[in-house]
Formats: sequence, structure tokens, C-alpha cells
Amino acid sequence: MSARRDGACENLLHGHLDMASPSHAGSQHKLQRKLTVSNMDDKIVAAKYAVRGTVVQRAAELKRALADGEALPFDELILCNIGNPHAVKQQPITFYRQVAAAMYMPELASDPQKLVASGLFPADVVERAQEYLKATGGSGVGSYTDSIGLQLVREQVAEFIQARDGFPADPGSITLTTGASEGVKRWIGALIAGERDGVMIPRPQYPLYSAALTMSGGIAVYYDLDEAKGWTTSWQELERAFQEAASAGTCVRALAMINPGNPVGAVLEEDGVALLVCFAASKGLVILADEVYQVNVYSPGKAFHSCKKVLRKLQAQQLMAPPEAGDASAVLDQAQLVSFHSTSKGLIGECGQRGGFMEMVGFSEATLAQFKKVAATSLSSNTIGQIFVGLMVKGPAPDSPSRYLFDCEQQTILDGLKRRALAASDALNKMPGISCQPIEGAMYAFPCIQLPAAMKEEGAGADEMWCISLMEATGIVCVPGSGFGQKPGTFHARLTILPPDDMFDSMLLKMAEFQKNLYEEWGPA
Amino acid sequence: MSARRDGACENLLHGHLDMASPSHAGSQHKLQRKLTVSNMDDKIVAAKYAVRGTVVQRAAELKRALADGEALPFDELILCNIGNPHAVKQQPITFYRQVAAAMYMPELASDPQKLVASGLFPADVVERAQEYLKATGGSGVGSYTDSIGLQLVREQVAEFIQARDGFPADPGSITLTTGASEGVKRWIGALIAGERDGVMIPRPQYPLYSAALTMSGGIAVYYDLDEAKGWTTSWQELERAFQEAASAGTCVRALAMINPGNPVGAVLEEDGVALLVCFAASKGLVILADEVYQVNVYSPGKAFHSCKKVLRKLQAQQLMAPPEAGDASAVLDQAQLVSFHSTSKGLIGECGQRGGFMEMVGFSEATLAQFKKVAATSLSSNTIGQIFVGLMVKGPAPDSPSRYLFDCEQQTILDGLKRRALAASDALNKMPGISCQPIEGAMYAFPCIQLPAAMKEEGAGADEMWCISLMEATGIVCVPGSGFGQKPGTFHARLTILPPDDMFDSMLLKMAEFQKNLYEEWGPA
Repeated sequence: MSARRDGACENLLHGHLDMASPSHAGSQHKLQRKLTVSNMDDKIVAAKYAVRGTVVQRAAELKRALADGEALPFDELILCNIGNPHAVKQQPITFYRQVAAAMYMPELASDPQKLVASGLFPADVVERAQEYLKATGGSGVGSYTDSIGLQLVREQVAEFIQARDGFPADPGSITLTTGASEGVKRWIGALIAGERDGVMIPRPQYPLYSAALTMSGGIAVYYDLDEAKGWTTSWQELERAFQEAASAGTCVRALAMINPGNPVGAVLEEDGVALLVCFAASKGLVILADEVYQVNVYSPGKAFHSCKKVLRKLQAQQLMAPPEAGDASAVLDQAQLVSFHSTSKGLIGECGQRGGFMEMVGFSEATLAQFKKVAATSLSSNTIGQIFVGLMVKGPAPDSPSRYLFDCEQQTILDGLKRRALAASDALNKMPGISCQPIEGAMYAFPCIQLPAAMKEEGAGADEMWCISLMEATGIVCVPGSGFGQKPGTFHARLTILPPDDMFDSMLLKMAEFQKNLYEEWGPA
Repeated sequence: MSARRDGACENLLHGHLDMASPSHAGSQHKLQRKLTVSNMDDKIVAAKYAVRGTVVQRAAELKRALADGEALPFDELILCNIGNPHAVKQQPITFYRQVAAAMYMPELASDPQKLVASGLFPADVVERAQEYLKATGGSGVGSYTDSIGLQLVREQVAEFIQARDGFPADPGSITLTTGASEGVKRWIGALIAGERDGVMIPRPQYPLYSAALTMSGGIAVYYDLDEAKGWTTSWQELERAFQEAASAGTCVRALAMINPGNPVGAVLEEDGVALLVCFAASKGLVILADEVYQVNVYSPGKAFHSCKKVLRKLQAQQLMAPPEAGDASAVLDQAQLVSFHSTSKGLIGECGQRGGFMEMVGFSEATLAQFKKVAATSLSSNTIGQIFVGLMVKGPAPDSPSRYLFDCEQQTILDGLKRRALAASDALNKMPGISCQPIEGAMYAFPCIQLPAAMKEEGAGADEMWCISLMEATGIVCVPGSGFGQKPGTFHARLTILPPDDMFDSMLLKMAEFQKNLYEEWGPA
């Protein structure tokens, strides 16, 4: 407990002795007991979450200014700050939406044929909705489900994983969650048993990890991704991070990995995943695998390799462990892995549904029961979000009425993402003072920016200043690299590749122009 | 940090020194580092959540046995264990569902008239859906919203509160949450700044409060509700609880109240609310007001009095503070209050949507900003759940096409709840060994049961044994009083009043029969 908090308590304990006396009812002592920033849990105050930080607040001011008709150098904001596809005009996939709508239609239970007859709902949509209605015991989307989620959806997820990996998955080890974030927070909360406990996380990382660690009172143990090597890491770097933390008295409990990478956009090769899996296993660390971008792979020749598949292949000796791992077979058999996925990303992009799941591998029934209890304190995740998970992992049947449109819509989204991934890294690498690794996957460019020396003198907030300058000149909203972590002395920004092609291309032109003017205004890097 | 955790860390720190040597790769040292129940955060292991506890697990076994065709003394389970109305055949309200379905229809943006022309959607439904679509900036239910929720919905909530209380409400002080539970957990997490911090909670209470306190590492400071006085409390009892906690070194930070009461079913008079508000204000405690059952009031002459209204009336001296509060005006001006509401209860009963809101009164902008940051780490609550909040607080317009059916459906639900509240307390009070306070509101009966002496010898689990015996004999699923807290030596059970009338009446008959046989089988109380 911090001294600050102790101090607050002392005041309170002295204060209450006067309570019976009405004349003291308004005394300073008691007013100090109320909740203020200075006496709330300092772990909460300490947490940072840049994706919705200062730049976003300034963006809200500019949005109001535009709405009020104020003259600005741009007509609209281009939101490249957050992976929120539908907010930047990515069209929802019709089949998913029709099933969801049917789930809410009173006629689904009373007169399903009326839905088909209306012409608004293809027959396979109504059939699929009826399956989910049955899966809720007939009570529909208005009921809590089992705390870990609907059995049918967990079975569909298990089938999806099995088809993806070629190894079996157990619906009993799958829990549906409110997006992936809820699962990550639950796991970090359980792993941080004391203030010396820590979790290895990549740098750069998605700030959910650092924020959850701070809020749980644990330690972020950073391992660096090497920008020059396509944002990969090495056994040596993992070992450095681990040993430095251990020497400082940190008890490392888990290793988090993000593949495809957020914010870095890299897609790991199979041996890159094996490296992380073997390192974690050799140190007895739980692997937290953020695989929410598993469908978002753009580079020719690249493929997504799930942590679970790589673990199973290593265990079956279908894949060799890296030489640094030595004879890792014994520890690989004991490996523990949690993989997170979400309806918010992929091609579905349904962030607003807050659907997600986690697969937990290598844990005892007793451990899983604790997570089930934690899930129960939130009753269950929202039912339609669970159904979106089922839809994401199982589209319309081949040859069903919905299939053709479904395939076209998916392909259009994927093609757009691929095109913009390529366009962004091409254009960024041509801008003065900017270099960008290939955007192999996920939804982001994370270019390195040579800031003008005068801007760098502003210190830690220099990349934030660059982002705000860019936004005030062009309307482009992005997130400073400091929000994700970056090598000291380097500066980055994260931009999504989600806006529609025409807006995106014009965004790249505006950014090039801004960057050219930057050095004229601020002087050289 | 507990000795157990320290022990685990020591092993790990010794263990890692061997890591470089492959021959030690499978050593016991490292296996101890992985996650087990014995080395996860002990606050999580310690948490209890009876509403989904042992009885519910046994119920799941019985359900499977029934499905497998096993001969049991009953044909179906009667689920009275959880406030999940649609799971026990309460019909969803058509207007809400039609707006939700329209939100998911691809035609809402492209061709809204097609929805009306289909005959499936009344015109006012489509208009309302269009309003919400516009409120999302046109991006619809697939987008994250602002972390604290859609502005339009927060405005609708503010209008609802203002109409309910006769005092203004500020949309800026309202945050939309995933059910009420998420809000309660966030607040308890922020209030518990150290292990000496505690929150006053009623006994009996809803176990979310005790579970959230345990998981946050804080102390539950119980104040007793007096069963003989209709489950009310007194200044004297509040003072006893507070002083005992303070003497034991607890820094009390907040006072939680549940009105209408869960599990007790009592509805507080205005002076009962004023007592709690003035007590909390006089001690400088944040008031956490769980008001999720505010529409569920059944007893003639009873009405819901919100904490906010009572606070404002006290501040305006339209209501007298209780004499024990002395001159409370100075502290009342400084009072801090959070009120929680949910789409899961009321007449809407849409648990599966996980919609909820909290109104925060008396906090600084800086404090609210911290809660906004915590909300941001979950991105936002699910968008359709937010829209259900808007629908709950603002039904169809008078004279709109949907209004008549809406009124009929609401009335039918309310009438059923009223009838069953009365039927339950009547029938329970006639059963041997059972007494029950009037069920004035909420969704529960919380009868006191004179257990047979032989059953009481089983100790703390005696009421659980009663619940399981009842379930195995009749199929009735309820929750033991020990899950909520009860006066030592007394035994209770919580039963919902939600099943449909015919099932509910037959449930009461079965329970009476069970109770008669109980003393024959086990001997006298």
C-alpha cells in the first residue's frame, strides 16, 4: 500500500471519531474520505491507454469545430487511429447481419416462414437462426447463457480450430468472451498474484497488455521486436529480457505474443512462432497468444501459423524446436497456452458486437473452474456477440442461397485490405524521413519517422506532437508510437489501413505533403 | 503478497539459473512456474459466487440425466435460481426486438422503406432505428462507440432520470456499461486502493458485491438488514458496522445499497433511502446504489425512490435528514453517488443484451476521466446493448403504431410479477417451517426456513443441503441463503418469481409437499 493511501486512511480513522458530533459533520477530515484521483486505486491512475488518449481527445475537438462550421485546412477527419472497420465505411457482411436480425425478430419463434416469405431473409439465414435459437434452449438472445458461452458456438469454434490446425480442439476448453480484451484482462488478473509477478510482452505492443498489467499491479517485462528484421525477435533477446527481469526480482509468469502483429503488421513464420512457444515452455511460462488478426494476412507467400498448431506439431515432433531450446520435449508436453480471437477484426470487423473467444490448452480442470467462476461474476457475455462468434467461424454452407454474396463480400474486403497494405508501405517508404516495414498482416502501418531535431527536443512527447501536427494540417488521426512502446530515440506512428481506397489514397498524398513541409517548417532531422 | 506466492517465486528464481542447460529443461523447478490454482492470484481463488455455484452444477447433472431419459421424481427443472426472465418464458417486448432487428438489417441504411413495405416493421420502429443509426455516425451496430457509450443514448438516459426524479441529469455523468455488473466492478476496483480498504454492503446482499471486493483485495463490511422489520436497517446498525470496521483498522470507502432489494425483495420508503444517504454522506462514503429493480415494485402503496432524487431533495431541504444525522447539510452538498441500472431486469428482462448504465453524481471531471480511461481499456460496451438501454428508458411515442401492443405487453408482464409476488408470499407463509416477508419488489422471495435439527448439524452447508434435497425431490432450482449472507443460525433460500403462472403455482404446491415431508424424514426443527 502506498504512503499516499496510508495517509488518506489515517485522516479517515481520525475523522470518524467526531462523527457523532453534528458540529463536525462538515469537517475537512471527512471530506478527504470521498473518492478523488488522489485516493483511488493508484494502479488505475497509473494505467495508460494511448489508443484512446490525447490525440483522440484533440480529434474530438476538431470534429466539433468542423461541425460548428469553423474553417480548418480539411473538410473531414480521416480516422486511422483505431481498428474499427465499419466506422470507416467497411460494409458489414450481409449473411451475418441477416442471421442477427432474424435472431431478434419475434417471428423467428412464432412463424419463421413469415420471415422467408417477406423476401428479406433467405431460407438458409432463417435455418441458421433457428439453430441458434434452439441452442439457447428456445429462450433466445434475451437470456443469459452459460457463463462460458453457448455450447453450440463453442462446438463451432472447436470445429473451426480443428480445421485450421489439423489438431483436435475441445469445446470444454473454449470460453466465449466480450471481445478478446476481456479474456486478456482475466488472464493477466489471474497470473499476477503479487507485485513481483510479471508478464513478458513485445515492444512495440498493443497497450491493452501494459494497461492490464498496470491495473493488476504486475510488471511488464518487455522483449524487443527488431524493426530491421521485419519486427521479429530472437532467443537471445527473449533470454535477455527474462534474465534482466529475474535479476531484478521479477517472477515472470507468462509470455504474450501478437501474431499477426499489432501495431507492427508482421506475420510470423512457423519457426518464429516455434521460437516463442519453445522459449515460454522452457521457462514454464503461460503463452498468451493474441491471434485476433489471424485472417488478416496480405503478403504473397505468407500464412498464419497458430500457436496451438505449432505447439502440437512441436509436441508431435513434426516440427523441430530451435537449437537454443535443447531437448525441449519434456517441457513442451507441459506447455500452457491461451489463444484469443475476436469478431472485431478479420474480414467480419464487427467490433460493436464485442464477440470473442479464448482456447485454453494444458490447464487442469481445477484451473479452468476458477476462470469459469470469474466469468460467472459477469453472468455471461452478450448473447448476440456469442452468435457472431459462431457466424465468424462458420459461414453459410456451400451452395446455400447466401453463399455467393458472402464469398463476394469477403473477397472485396480482403482485396481492399491487401491493396491498401501494399499501397501504404510503398507510399510511406517514398515519403521524406519515413521508412516502413512491409505490412504483411493485421490492419496497421507502423512507420518509423525521422523527426526534425527541433521537434525531438520536446522529449518524450515528440511523436505525439508529430501526430497532432499531422492531424491539425490534414485531418489524419493516428496514434503515436510511444503509446505502444518503441526503441528509445526512435519515433513511430500507427495508422490503420481501413479507410476506403479513395480516402486512403488521398490520405497518403496529404501525408506526403505534410512530411515534405515538416522539415521546411521545423528544420532537418 | 502471500507466503505461498513468495514460495512459488523462490522456486522460479532458483529454477531459471539452470535454464541454459538442456538437461534441466524438464525439471520440477520449472514446472512449478506454470499456472495452477495454487499459484494464481489468491484473491480470485478466494472469491465466491453462489448464484452459479454448487446447486447450479448439480442442476446441470440432473438436466443431463433427464435428457438421457433417466427416471427422476420430476419431468423438468423449474429454474428459480437466477433472474433470467426470458429463460423461463417471459416474452420479449415486440417494439424493442423489432428496433434491434432493424438495426441489423442491411436495408436500414440502403432502403429503409423496404423494411416497412415488408410488413415486418412498423414505421415508427424503422424511424427509431434510423435515429440510432444516425447516432452511430452512420456506421451502425458493428462499430465501437465512444468508450462511455453513444451520446444519444446517454441523453435519453438523462431525460429518463430527469422525468423520474424531477431533478436534472447530465449525459456527461452517465456511462453505458456491460450490464450493471461491469459498472459495480469498476467502482469497487477503483475504491479499493489498498488491502485495508472496505465497502459497507448489506447482509443479505447480491454476491457480486462480496465477489468484487474479494477479487479487488478489499474488505466487505456488512450491515445487517432486519428481517423482522421488513429487511430494513437502522442508523444504529450502520454505525455499529462502521465503527467495528474502523476499530479493526478498515478504511471504509463506500456504502452499497440495493433497492428494491436483492435477494430480500423489500422496497425502501423515502426515509429509508434518506437514512442510507445521510449516513454515507456523514461518513464521507461514496454511495453505490444498485437500482436495477427500480421498475419492479408490486406492493400497493409502495413506490421506488431513487437515491439521486432523495439526495437532491435532502440537499434542497425538501426532505428532512434523520435526527441522527444532525446538521447534515454541509456533507450532503459534498455527497458522491453512483446509481446502477440494467436492461436485464425491469419489465424488459433482456439479460442477454448486457446493457446497463451508471449515473455518477458529485465527482470531479478528473475522477470521471479515470473511469473513462478504464472504460477505454474495454473499447466500449456492445452497441446493440447500448441501444437496448435507450429503448428501455424511452418506449415508442404515444399514439405511434407500436404503442398499444407495447403497453399491453408491459402490463401483462407487470401483472404476472405482481400476482406471483403475492402468491409466493402467501403460499410460503402457509408452509410448515417457512416464513416469508412480503415480496414488495425485485424478482425474488427470500423465505426463512426452519431446518430440521439433524440437517442443521451439517453446519454451514445446511441450507445448501436443503436446496439440493428440494431440487432432487421436485426439480425446483433455488439458491441457498448462505450465498447471500444471513444472520448466523438462520437459513434462507432465494427463489425467483419469474416462471409462468401455471408452472409457478405448481412449483409452490410441490415445495409445500416437500416441506411437509422434510420433517417426517429428518425429524423436527
